[in-house]
Amino acid sequence: MTVNDFPGGRTVRHDTIVIERRFDATPARVFAAWADPAARARRSSPGTGRGIAADQHDFRVGGREVSRFGPAGEPVYRAETTYLDIVPDRRIVMAGTMTEGETRISASMATVELLTTGDDTRMIYTEQAAFLDGRDVLENRVRGWGENLDKLDAELRRECEP
Amino acid sequence: MTVNDFPGGRTVRHDTIVIERRFDATPARVFAAWADPAARARRSSPGTGRGIAADQHDFRVGGREVSRFGPAGEPVYRAETTYLDIVPDRRIVMAGTMTEGETRISASMATVELLTTGDDTRMIYTEQAAFLDGRDVLENRVRGWGENLDKLDAELRRECEP
Repeated sequence: MTVNDFPGGRTVRHDTIVIERRFDATPARVFAAWADPAARARRSSPGTGRGIAADQHDFRVGGREVSRFGPAGEPVYRAETTYLDIVPDRRIVMAGTMTEGETRISASMATVELLTTGDDTRMIYTEQAAFLDGRDVLENRVRGWGENLDKLDAELRRECEP
Repeated sequence: MTVNDFPGGRTVRHDTIVIERRFDATPARVFAAWADPAARARRSSPGTGRGIAADQHDFRVGGREVSRFGPAGEPVYRAETTYLDIVPDRRIVMAGTMTEGETRISASMATVELLTTGDDTRMIYTEQAAFLDGRDVLENRVRGWGENLDKLDAELRRECEP
C-alpha cells in the first residue's frame, strides 16, 4: 500500500479494531496480567520470532512506556505508549505511536474493558488507529493482537494448574 | 446518559467524528493557525461564554499541552493533549483526555489533515473518541468543534483583509 492508495491525496487511513475474548480468570487476574510489565514481556518474548525489549515502564495515568521489537537482533520497531485512563480491574485506555526505524508508521488509542460474567472475564479490546502514509496496515495489527491474546489466555490457564 | 445506558455492563462508548471544511487559505496558513498557541487561544476566548486558560504549550512530537476552560470564572474542564505526529503544513495527530473536576470524562485521538486544492485548503478533522462512564457525549464534541472551526475560518478571512 502506498500513499497513492489513499483517496483524495490523504495520508492517513483510520480504522477501528474490536477484539472480544473470554478468559477463564477473574477480571482482577486479567488486569494484573495487563498491568505487570514482566507478564507482558513473557507474552511478547521469542516464540513468534519477535524479540521485545522494554526500555521504560510506567503503568499509571500519564505514565509512558517504550518498547522495541522485531526479528531477533533487529529491533526495528519502537512502540511508545502513554496511559490515559486506568480503572483497576475494569479499564485501561492508552495511546501511542509505532515507529519503524526513524519513520512513524501509525498512531492509535486502545481501550481494554474487563467485564465480569461471574468467575470469568469478558474482555473487549478496542483500538482506534490512524495508519500513516501507507506504512502500517490493519491486518498486521489484528494478527499481532490475536497472537498476543492467545498467549495471555495460555498464561492465565497455566497459572491455574496445580 | 448514565453507565446503565452502556450495553452489557460496558463503561466506554467509542465514536469517530469526521468534520470536513474548506478554508480560503493555503495549507501553510491553516497549519500555522493550528500550531500557534496564541491563535488557538484567540479562537477559544470568550464570545461563546467559554473562557480558556493555557497552562502549558509544547507543539512538537511528544510535547504536552494543558488547558482549562468552562464558564467565565469557573474553569471546571481540563484538556491534556500530547502530540503524536506532526508533518508541517500537512498533518497533526494528537491524543489526550478531558477531565471535569477530578473525573476523567473522555479520551480521544484526533487527526488534522490539510490537503491542498490549489490556493485553498481542504481540512479533514477526524476524532476517534472514547466517552467514559456516560459523562461526556458525542453531540457536545461535534458542536464544540463546529464553533471552533467557524472561528478559525473567520480568523483566516480577517487576515486577508487589507
